[in-house]
Amino acid sequence: MKLYIGNKNYSSWSMRPWVLMRQSGISFEELTLRFDSFAPDSSFKLQALALAPTGKVPLLVDEGLTIWDSLAICEYLAERFPDKHLWPQTVAQRARARSLVAQMHSGFGALRSFCPMNIEAQLQETGARLWAEHADLRSDVQQLEELWTPLLSAASGPMLFDQFSIADAFFAPVCMRINSYGLPTSAPVRAYVQRVTQLPATQEWIQAALAEQDFLQFEEPYRQQR
Amino acid sequence: MKLYIGNKNYSSWSMRPWVLMRQSGISFEELTLRFDSFAPDSSFKLQALALAPTGKVPLLVDEGLTIWDSLAICEYLAERFPDKHLWPQTVAQRARARSLVAQMHSGFGALRSFCPMNIEAQLQETGARLWAEHADLRSDVQQLEELWTPLLSAASGPMLFDQFSIADAFFAPVCMRINSYGLPTSAPVRAYVQRVTQLPATQEWIQAALAEQDFLQFEEPYRQQR
Repeated sequence: MKLYIGNKNYSSWSMRPWVLMRQSGISFEELTLRFDSFAPDSSFKLQALALAPTGKVPLLVDEGLTIWDSLAICEYLAERFPDKHLWPQTVAQRARARSLVAQMHSGFGALRSFCPMNIEAQLQETGARLWAEHADLRSDVQQLEELWTPLLSAASGPMLFDQFSIADAFFAPVCMRINSYGLPTSAPVRAYVQRVTQLPATQEWIQAALAEQDFLQFEEPYRQQR
Repeated sequence: MKLYIGNKNYSSWSMRPWVLMRQSGISFEELTLRFDSFAPDSSFKLQALALAPTGKVPLLVDEGLTIWDSLAICEYLAERFPDKHLWPQTVAQRARARSLVAQMHSGFGALRSFCPMNIEAQLQETGARLWAEHADLRSDVQQLEELWTPLLSAASGPMLFDQFSIADAFFAPVCMRINSYGLPTSAPVRAYVQRVTQLPATQEWIQAALAEQDFLQFEEPYRQQR
């Protein structure tokens, strides 16, 4: 099984299936399509378009099948490895987990556009300014509070649905943003963000992100250099 | 089972699970939360927030479970009604269908923002201007061509994956946009758009959209009145 990903420092979409697979003990070969730019003639685009019509990562290739989009990859893996329990086991928890994951997949536009994932960066001052200036950013974080708090109160384990699931993998990039930009959260949410950050798979991703040497101007609205 | 939806003329996200359920013969009670505005004190928001923390439609309520987001609702229904075959039956087709659906769920931003769904409107002149002016709109439609054409060539039935599935329900609002704005497509794609438009469930949705009397300024970037 081959998983194509982008730069670990920047590619929030790639992080989701990677953390899911690594944390769940699903073996795979990792292939990086380094972001040079997203222009049609960029090395990244040419390589990605040779693999799938989207020209994007992540991409999973398994037994001749090419699956794109982080959510479709997660659903595929949940079917392929039923013993890994990638979704929560009860119908009610699974329905709720899918609601959150789908909402994350298409929503949280302000959080995503104002606070692009940048694991290596210390952007707390920028984060404080963005927080003060943008009501829609505060509103996105407030929504996370409203979604997560009742789940964390009810959970019998450290994750949103007790044990690690696709939901936690899907929110891992959000946890990275909350860390890098120092976004204010309640104590229970902060503790959950820390637990996701400390997962072995997340730590491995973070260490690899820190070791990257790329500074990509088009991913850096707030800095001139590393 | 209760499905909460917005205005049929405008709510593309509502259209997906509604068409899926109706076309598949899944019975449900339909409840409309009319769009008055999306302001925090709007009647729509107050009603929607009383049902779920997202404050959005569609929402499915089933046996005490509240499931939001069109994609999570579709996955829930696929599990709940396995005999309805809402996803294609083979692993390969299902993986591809989920890739397309997830891509639609988070992507096609230009098509969605320039051509908001507006079933009742005749916007062909606007569509021609948008088409000439916006490369990213042309690129989104080109992507649909690249995704759909090989599937339509290979299909042994009238839909993307032979028989009607979640994939066709997910693209039904795109078909409405192609119709209303008269966006140029190849002959096979145009024929597929027509087949989706002619599905009994789509026709029922369209007739109800035409019968609505609302003209919502915030959904109407191109018109002053009906």
